Amino acid sequence: MHYHTPTITDPSNTELAQLLQHKLDNKTKPLGSLGRIETLALRVGMILGTESPRLSDPQMLVFAGDHGLVAQGVSAYPSDVTWQMVENFLAGGAAVSVLARQHGIGLTVVDCGVRHDFEPRSGLIIRKVGYGTADSMQGQAMTDAQRDQALRQGGELIHNLPGNVLLLGEMGIGNTSAASLLMSRLIGLDIADCTGAGTGLNASGVQRKIDVLRAVLARHPEANDALSALSAFGGFEIATMVGAVLQAAADQRLIVVDGFITSAAVLLAVSMVPAAAEYCVFAHQSGERGHALMLAHMQAEPLLDLGLRLGEGSGAAIAWPLLVSACALLRDMASFESAGVSRQENTVANVRA
Amino acid sequence: MHYHTPTITDPSNTELAQLLQHKLDNKTKPLGSLGRIETLALRVGMILGTESPRLSDPQMLVFAGDHGLVAQGVSAYPSDVTWQMVENFLAGGAAVSVLARQHGIGLTVVDCGVRHDFEPRSGLIIRKVGYGTADSMQGQAMTDAQRDQALRQGGELIHNLPGNVLLLGEMGIGNTSAASLLMSRLIGLDIADCTGAGTGLNASGVQRKIDVLRAVLARHPEANDALSALSAFGGFEIATMVGAVLQAAADQRLIVVDGFITSAAVLLAVSMVPAAAEYCVFAHQSGERGHALMLAHMQAEPLLDLGLRLGEGSGAAIAWPLLVSACALLRDMASFESAGVSRQENTVANVRA
Repeated sequence: MHYHTPTITDPSNTELAQLLQHKLDNKTKPLGSLGRIETLALRVGMILGTESPRLSDPQMLVFAGDHGLVAQGVSAYPSDVTWQMVENFLAGGAAVSVLARQHGIGLTVVDCGVRHDFEPRSGLIIRKVGYGTADSMQGQAMTDAQRDQALRQGGELIHNLPGNVLLLGEMGIGNTSAASLLMSRLIGLDIADCTGAGTGLNASGVQRKIDVLRAVLARHPEANDALSALSAFGGFEIATMVGAVLQAAADQRLIVVDGFITSAAVLLAVSMVPAAAEYCVFAHQSGERGHALMLAHMQAEPLLDLGLRLGEGSGAAIAWPLLVSACALLRDMASFESAGVSRQENTVANVRA
Repeated sequence: MHYHTPTITDPSNTELAQLLQHKLDNKTKPLGSLGRIETLALRVGMILGTESPRLSDPQMLVFAGDHGLVAQGVSAYPSDVTWQMVENFLAGGAAVSVLARQHGIGLTVVDCGVRHDFEPRSGLIIRKVGYGTADSMQGQAMTDAQRDQALRQGGELIHNLPGNVLLLGEMGIGNTSAASLLMSRLIGLDIADCTGAGTGLNASGVQRKIDVLRAVLARHPEANDALSALSAFGGFEIATMVGAVLQAAADQRLIVVDGFITSAAVLLAVSMVPAAAEYCVFAHQSGERGHALMLAHMQAEPLLDLGLRLGEGSGAAIAWPLLVSACALLRDMASFESAGVSRQENTVANVRA
């Protein structure tokens, strides 16, 4: 069964944008003095289609999968760490688990293709496409049928998701390699500019990774668009995430993007349906080499720059309260009129036209 | 009665630092992959003197006062906005009110010298040194006795403060001017490098402000140290804040610094007792010109860079959940051993020495 991309409405609405800007400008503060928080409030208002946005029941999905390319020595950790970390997420001991608890974010792990059989339990959804992708040095990481299955399953996950926010997380030893390959091919940058230390390679490890990835790219000269690149390079968790992003945008949910790998999924989604970009807020610029270039390519302005390079969705969760703040300020701050506060003396003030 | 600076213990403790670093390094994540959040966790652990820091009952004090220098046309808003905004804080409609509610931060306004008589009420502490400072173009902004009163009162405010965290906020039309004067004199930078738009001056307004401030500096050539500069330039809210910062550091509380004006108070406090710096976390780099230079002078690394320039403590409140995250991760994340997760393969990994 083929995958059909959902229809995504561009949320741009000049009238609502003007209403939101007017509302922000009448709050008891100098014009624009809440900086990026005001831009964020405006964007969330546009996505949710209201002057009084309220984020409800936020849901973090952690998409997990394994990568056959790990056999080529591209990661500092063995593949078994993928399932071990999934267990850690479910037991509540991982960074994203701690952060989700702090903020009341629902946390669900989606097994998109981990090389392990999990006991079914609360907080875990099994949507396994395979036991890890194939080694992209040897051939396609996945068949086109597997890719379409993953994309479809990603979309279906969104249908029954509570609330109006999707936060993106991921786990998969080897998935910075897949993200670097996808980025290099879709943006057209040299693989060295797209490749970093991942979970913690040293300099010679990074050089080896670059050499391997360059060879993988040479193996797949035809994989030039999002769909064929997904099949060639993987992974199952990235393909599932692409389907989830497109469906979340189609459903007019706010999408909170984490670091390098989730941004790569968004890069693919946006290359398939450009309007999907309008539903995304980029939580942070990670310490992973390539992420800054990827964000620049998408003209994305990340909220935080804290040198995070953990993944899991940890950066999205850390940035989450800023989104809540933006909406609360837009909804609950007093206006000059309601608070009886004097306005600027316009003879000396920098008044927005 | 003279002001006596409290004794501040340097919280540096090599053994505790090593324990904290070891604890962070054993969490289920690649080494250092939580970036600045790890540095923050280490610092909070040192300040609170424990491997398992827990921030309790955070208190935002908004120090408010008026400035005689406003008569020289240095602000885009009239002085009356100070008391009007205090009413707005107390009514719950200001940005800092909304943010404090979001995060469960106690909010108290301290009238250090507003040109207005407030009705007593919950959430307001009257520690008025005068009805606004005198015009520093004409003479001292305050007497040395007033300054010492403000410093003492600032310290006394801390004695009965609940919890272990002080977040700094301020309100005072004209106080970016006082902060620029203090910064220029204490750091030795030209006043043009220390002066910005404040609440929203246009270019000619900023130039006029620089001209006025340059003349004020020339009027007070002798005001070269923190105490004499405070008397010369004001304000009551800044002097009270300096006393509060020094006492909070003496009591080994965590101090969360907001933007330009609260940073100027910390600059003064640190010039009086350098160890006070060790208790401060700088929430953000503001959009106010001069703040980046002031932070660089103190070798402070702000957490956020969102172009905020509102003051009130709004940036400190926006950054607050990041501090909570840092402590939660340090306390609650699993270790590799406890979670049964495999470690890095050290042949290729970048292992910390």
